[in-house]
Amino acid sequence: MSEGEAGERVCAWHASVLTLFPDMFPGPLGFSLLGQALKNGLWTLDTLDFRTFASDKHRSVDAPPAGGGPGLVMRADIAAAAIDAARARSLAERPVIYLSPRGAPFTQARARELAEGPGAILLCGRFEGIDERALFARDVEEICVGDAVLTGGEIPAMAVLDASLRLIPGVLGASESLEEESFSAGLLEHPQYTKPAIWEGHEIPPVLLSGHHGKVAEWRLDRSKAITQERRPDLWKAYQKRHAPAEQSDAKNTGAQSPNNKD
Amino acid sequence: MSEGEAGERVCAWHASVLTLFPDMFPGPLGFSLLGQALKNGLWTLDTLDFRTFASDKHRSVDAPPAGGGPGLVMRADIAAAAIDAARARSLAERPVIYLSPRGAPFTQARARELAEGPGAILLCGRFEGIDERALFARDVEEICVGDAVLTGGEIPAMAVLDASLRLIPGVLGASESLEEESFSAGLLEHPQYTKPAIWEGHEIPPVLLSGHHGKVAEWRLDRSKAITQERRPDLWKAYQKRHAPAEQSDAKNTGAQSPNNKD
Repeated sequence: MSEGEAGERVCAWHASVLTLFPDMFPGPLGFSLLGQALKNGLWTLDTLDFRTFASDKHRSVDAPPAGGGPGLVMRADIAAAAIDAARARSLAERPVIYLSPRGAPFTQARARELAEGPGAILLCGRFEGIDERALFARDVEEICVGDAVLTGGEIPAMAVLDASLRLIPGVLGASESLEEESFSAGLLEHPQYTKPAIWEGHEIPPVLLSGHHGKVAEWRLDRSKAITQERRPDLWKAYQKRHAPAEQSDAKNTGAQSPNNKD
Repeated sequence: MSEGEAGERVCAWHASVLTLFPDMFPGPLGFSLLGQALKNGLWTLDTLDFRTFASDKHRSVDAPPAGGGPGLVMRADIAAAAIDAARARSLAERPVIYLSPRGAPFTQARARELAEGPGAILLCGRFEGIDERALFARDVEEICVGDAVLTGGEIPAMAVLDASLRLIPGVLGASESLEEESFSAGLLEHPQYTKPAIWEGHEIPPVLLSGHHGKVAEWRLDRSKAITQERRPDLWKAYQKRHAPAEQSDAKNTGAQSPNNKD
């Protein structure tokens, strides 16, 4: 990451997207705060069209899979040429990320790492994927956004960019709203309420209107824990592991790992 | 789901998106096969702008959270009015899905269910979320696409739509390419290769060029298992559970649950 003396970023965060549909970008990333940040030069975006790296007259980038089977696979030479061209556009070493159902699940921690780096090269596949040799030879990272198959990597690439870009200082208006969010602390966010105080007969929980900051914070943490435990046992388990008191971590039956334990 | 006598769909799949940025849509969904399917009437899309449901002169849809804290929360009355208006646009009962980091992780199974239904109403939040009372009172389902926080629900909504729409018969060209994909069988997809046979000195695995279909299938299944085991222990565990021979499922130490077990 390029930083000035006071730690501020001196180069814009640089996104390069490799796709068959360059006109999809910036798309939704061109709106609202991310779009404003793009206009203001906090990040830059360029797209590379795989077809410009095809050498035959049909501009073909894909071919049937070796060993048979349905669909088409993107050729290794095309994918590698596009990656090399994207890398040549920046002196900074940016990770190359292939959006793929076979990738590691995308996390808030990865978004934070990406935001702290110089940018990313996003490889958007279509068809039956990309020839494995290109992924191996070019040291490509595979990331999966949600456990479902999409028609292409473009929308997942937008999700990775959105999550990363919003963490760049200056992109969001109030930096404080980055705090207390789902995943940051390893817990899902507590429920939120706002005016009117009574709506269709439903009241706002009284503690939130009490003006007692300590009780509000306690209620919110309790609700966060309960929701995490109910909806995401995986996150809850990890949270408990991190928050188990060190002196009790080796003891048996202390209750520190009990699902009903309150910190 | 509306079906004709032969089982084919008689009504278009109907997506309604509730958002502050209706111009983001169809966006990437307007390209390629999904865009073609939209033009051909296989699915329809309408957007509702939350601001049209605001009653004050500033068209405000949000207010500070009850109990204090940063950011703004969308009002229950606005969110509920938008949901009610979307529901009124269709006789069919469509699920209302709020894209939220607190939601259940999106899966291929949920995409399949959605594709088989009449459509979906997608609620895209911004800010610090939506007043909990609206979610409760309107029976809203919360879905999370990837474990990261985004600036809004629009890109995750596009991901849910993409994954669901491609499963509607007629949207993808070759229906066969729906088979043998990541998640469908509970395993990640095997590596793919295509011509040229040698690229930068790297060969295609010889078995894929052998012409022996049985050996190709065996190699692919082995690679799928190995990749799933390495990258997604969670999916691998679930796969093993499903594929453990019934007569052994209650036995101890049969090896059926061993990570190195090959079916």
